Amino acid sequence: MSVTLARWGSFHVGGQRVLVAGQPPRQVQFAPGNPPTPVDPNGTYLVGGLYAQFMQPAPVRGAHPMLFWHGGGLTGVTWESTPDGRDGWQHFFLRQGWTTYVSDAVERGRSGWSMIPEQFGGEAVYLPAENPWPRFRFGPRMGEAFPGQQFPVEAYDNFMRQCVPRFTTTDEPTLEAYLALLDRVGPCVLVGHSQAGQFACRAAAARPGLVQAMVLVEPAAVMQPEALADVPMLLVYGDYIEGDDRWPAMRARGLAFAAAVRAAGGQAEVIDLPAAGLHGNSHMVMMDRNSDQVAALVQAWLVRQGLWG
Amino acid sequence: MSVTLARWGSFHVGGQRVLVAGQPPRQVQFAPGNPPTPVDPNGTYLVGGLYAQFMQPAPVRGAHPMLFWHGGGLTGVTWESTPDGRDGWQHFFLRQGWTTYVSDAVERGRSGWSMIPEQFGGEAVYLPAENPWPRFRFGPRMGEAFPGQQFPVEAYDNFMRQCVPRFTTTDEPTLEAYLALLDRVGPCVLVGHSQAGQFACRAAAARPGLVQAMVLVEPAAVMQPEALADVPMLLVYGDYIEGDDRWPAMRARGLAFAAAVRAAGGQAEVIDLPAAGLHGNSHMVMMDRNSDQVAALVQAWLVRQGLWG
Repeated sequence: MSVTLARWGSFHVGGQRVLVAGQPPRQVQFAPGNPPTPVDPNGTYLVGGLYAQFMQPAPVRGAHPMLFWHGGGLTGVTWESTPDGRDGWQHFFLRQGWTTYVSDAVERGRSGWSMIPEQFGGEAVYLPAENPWPRFRFGPRMGEAFPGQQFPVEAYDNFMRQCVPRFTTTDEPTLEAYLALLDRVGPCVLVGHSQAGQFACRAAAARPGLVQAMVLVEPAAVMQPEALADVPMLLVYGDYIEGDDRWPAMRARGLAFAAAVRAAGGQAEVIDLPAAGLHGNSHMVMMDRNSDQVAALVQAWLVRQGLWG
Repeated sequence: MSVTLARWGSFHVGGQRVLVAGQPPRQVQFAPGNPPTPVDPNGTYLVGGLYAQFMQPAPVRGAHPMLFWHGGGLTGVTWESTPDGRDGWQHFFLRQGWTTYVSDAVERGRSGWSMIPEQFGGEAVYLPAENPWPRFRFGPRMGEAFPGQQFPVEAYDNFMRQCVPRFTTTDEPTLEAYLALLDRVGPCVLVGHSQAGQFACRAAAARPGLVQAMVLVEPAAVMQPEALADVPMLLVYGDYIEGDDRWPAMRARGLAFAAAVRAAGGQAEVIDLPAAGLHGNSHMVMMDRNSDQVAALVQAWLVRQGLWG
């Protein structure tokens, strides 16, 4: 199904200026046949910026732009075509008439990382292919899928190709860059996955009135429920959680968070996909074979919030 | 001006499988509030893949998809919105009816880098803001622009935000991934900038019949003219070259290469932008204020090749 774009493009926002001094010069051969060029690593670096790509359909039916924030070890590619080549959530919501903003978190993807530690001080972790398979609940161990698994495990290599080193010590600059994105875009609907749960909560709390609704897909961490009573939110959890080492506690924290939001006078709904009749979802819900069905549940919730028409 | 997309999406291609063994385990706290999780860095890594994003307009008027390959220290963002927020070459050619593929070179942007050197063996160079300004011929030194400069120097910080560490020792896997991209896309028109000059030449020579035309924008290196006699090509050079340290020799090599292609029976045209009446172009021609005028010259050349209608 085709879509008409009124506008599309990309930009970087946020980040900080870092001055490096006292490092020795380097000789770099930039291309075959060229002589080595002296490179002075000392100077000014712009680090911690964030890349976002937007598409605005015509006509627009979403009340606000929809921002997609990916999880740890990944980039905005999370929301694009699935590893097995189907259309992803960005396609789904753009076709529903939402202006979409797909961003790469700080130091990941097109946001650009910086040399560690000279310019930024962060630490990166890059995981082997054996790691995400059980951690994202595709199956008990690499190559063995849970019965009924909806993740397209035959395309696991393509999924691993989109994984990138993750920084676990750069939460503050990441939050700052997300705030810069919110300030640029204005009122929005925020869709956050996994690691982005904490950034979504903190950013929405730090910018009252900007996040008009929040969809948290299997958030790894949630916080500040009292500050989020004005942000209607939906939490979505997949399958295979009971038998997992980590996810029962992480989901329990999500449910307690939702209850605390409601206790503070807010609105927090939880969709447990198996209980809603959708079985076999992994942690990568937006890539699972039934991703459009889950997206339709999210869309229906947004319609009920009066944010689409 | 709006555009209708029949299809759009993204994928990764290429890369290799690398096995890491004998590294000590690490304790990683993946999110605030979560306990440290042991991470075994040993295992299988899929490295050297390449990210590409495509948009297919309706109707299509270009005879083949148009592939955009960026230069060193940059990503596919090169071809998107300009640093000062104007539409870029991807917009221009998509609106002309070309299916566009914008890719990130191996280890850059959404292609994902890998830890150095455990998984890949490469070396990264990350340049301070003071470096590209004179090297890309914006002006003699940081903050001082050449008279008549077309690069939007007031948005220089936004340009630096899109710069990423570059790998100078990963040419072979980069070429391999570009070949995988060509094999997936099939017959195409190739637009390469700066560092991509060498990859474009080598890829076109390695896949006879696939690259139907080649546009090299200020190539840093060119090679294999005898193998490229069947590939119509256009070389484009900007302004301020005479007074530069490196560019007179680099352009001279490009002109000698074009002459060698012609001597081998091929077709190689050169546009010297100042001689064509377009003054003030930097190395980042596709970001300069007159970027659409330069794109129109490229489009006219492609029309003359019978590749558009």
